[in-house]
Amino acid sequence: MRTLHDAGIVTRHPIEVIDWTNEEGARFAPAMVASGVFAGVFSLDYALGQKDRDGVTLGEALERSGFAGSEEPGAHPLAAHFELHIEQGPVLENEGLEVGVVSGVQGIRWYDVMVKGQTCHAGTTPMALRRDALHAAARLAIAIDDIGWSDPGRSLSTIGLFQAYPGSRNTAPGEVRLTVDLRHPEVDGLNRMEAMLQKALGAVELDCGVDIEETKVWSSPPVEFDAGVLAAISAATQRLGYSHRTMLSGAGHDSVYTARVAPTGMIFIPCEGGLSHNVAENITPAEAERGANVLLQAVLDYDRSAG
Amino acid sequence: MRTLHDAGIVTRHPIEVIDWTNEEGARFAPAMVASGVFAGVFSLDYALGQKDRDGVTLGEALERSGFAGSEEPGAHPLAAHFELHIEQGPVLENEGLEVGVVSGVQGIRWYDVMVKGQTCHAGTTPMALRRDALHAAARLAIAIDDIGWSDPGRSLSTIGLFQAYPGSRNTAPGEVRLTVDLRHPEVDGLNRMEAMLQKALGAVELDCGVDIEETKVWSSPPVEFDAGVLAAISAATQRLGYSHRTMLSGAGHDSVYTARVAPTGMIFIPCEGGLSHNVAENITPAEAERGANVLLQAVLDYDRSAG
Repeated sequence: MRTLHDAGIVTRHPIEVIDWTNEEGARFAPAMVASGVFAGVFSLDYALGQKDRDGVTLGEALERSGFAGSEEPGAHPLAAHFELHIEQGPVLENEGLEVGVVSGVQGIRWYDVMVKGQTCHAGTTPMALRRDALHAAARLAIAIDDIGWSDPGRSLSTIGLFQAYPGSRNTAPGEVRLTVDLRHPEVDGLNRMEAMLQKALGAVELDCGVDIEETKVWSSPPVEFDAGVLAAISAATQRLGYSHRTMLSGAGHDSVYTARVAPTGMIFIPCEGGLSHNVAENITPAEAERGANVLLQAVLDYDRSAG
Repeated sequence: MRTLHDAGIVTRHPIEVIDWTNEEGARFAPAMVASGVFAGVFSLDYALGQKDRDGVTLGEALERSGFAGSEEPGAHPLAAHFELHIEQGPVLENEGLEVGVVSGVQGIRWYDVMVKGQTCHAGTTPMALRRDALHAAARLAIAIDDIGWSDPGRSLSTIGLFQAYPGSRNTAPGEVRLTVDLRHPEVDGLNRMEAMLQKALGAVELDCGVDIEETKVWSSPPVEFDAGVLAAISAATQRLGYSHRTMLSGAGHDSVYTARVAPTGMIFIPCEGGLSHNVAENITPAEAERGANVLLQAVLDYDRSAG
């Protein structure tokens, strides 16, 4: 934005910078809830009513932080939405490329799973009489990992949260709560993975004598970005002379939702070791500069060509 | 004690009721710390300095609760120590017996285990490039369960605490902390189980590309109780006409430590479904009465016969 001002450039469309609230969904599930409300995927009441683990709602947290705005979400139309992001994966770095032109985002499904066995004394309960929720959940974790390997290079599975209750050293856990994150570029792949998950839940219930409750908490279908926006990004990248490739995004982004209400596309730059969601996440100033240059040129191209 | 007073019985030895502090060790590890200090197994400073997960020491908690006494621990000799307890297991109930004469306690070893992998993004990190601490810990949990089955009817293994960090839905955990509880009636058995644990830790490290730190936090050797005390308990049980058997205790008890400084024995009564460390733990008034009768008669017998 400073560069546009410094260079005295006047665009045909107003240019805005958006910082979407709660993109990760780490404190308030689901993820990308603000862009989701903007795009009409979630109602405002639903979003503001989501609670963190301490029972605080997103609405309360926004009020407290001073970020609760007054504009009606979605009332403000976008001619296009461009998003610049680190790849959060190792592909660009491994291939020695400077820029990724992101053609779409893989689908994501989130599940909450509760494994219920029977709490019992570690020293007095014969192994054969136990219904150990931790042992059952460990077997489930192995099966869920296998789902991630079922379609190599495309399927991904992750257990992010996993906790055993009541959590006493000399007590076999009677309950384990865990989350499952399944990803695949195609709906058919997601359906196949979901079927594998259901089969694993049933098998562990039967083998370990536990009860399992499973809730699908979020489903984000695979997304294809706008051809016109992608053409602007590709043209800018080529004109700037950066090495690049077209690729899918593995992570969810606000662009998944803006794609429903506006032409959308994304730009990736490499990140060190492909690491993200890790304190070691890192990029260089040169990588940041290349990303910013592509974003600037692509937005200007699109502004000139779009109706 | 009321019955002794009501019946006007004067014993040769003073009879005392002891409520040992922190027997479970659930908030302050290790377990049985007060009887351990009494028996000279732990120093008083060590015990009072043990911290809970919030950093509060046992000494501070005792001061706050008003239970910090002034007597020098262990200075007060015991002619004998009798302990009445629920079995916390299913043996007496399954065999339809009313009383267990407890001849000893199996050995217990406790370990803290930390599995360190690499935190990474659930949507962008190929399965093959992950060092997922949760997946590694799940494999470890399966191997630790196997240790419990290695000597059927004698070996027991339990993972009581198991938590994954950082604990975000779309992040593969970089760290898992878990506890291991191994039990066996014989030192050789414990050694064999510990060797299996070490082997499992090494195998998971190698296969999953994680680092594992393991600390043995407690070791309680198998204990044999005093023949004279057990004879008094057996005689009382027979005189009262209760069905009974001799058995080992699976759980640790304060008697494990008092046995080092005084003739010691234990009495078991059945508990519903063998359940303990569970909100459903239950006994009947009739079972409690039988246990109290055995305790009373055994103590009176021993009082009369002991020097």
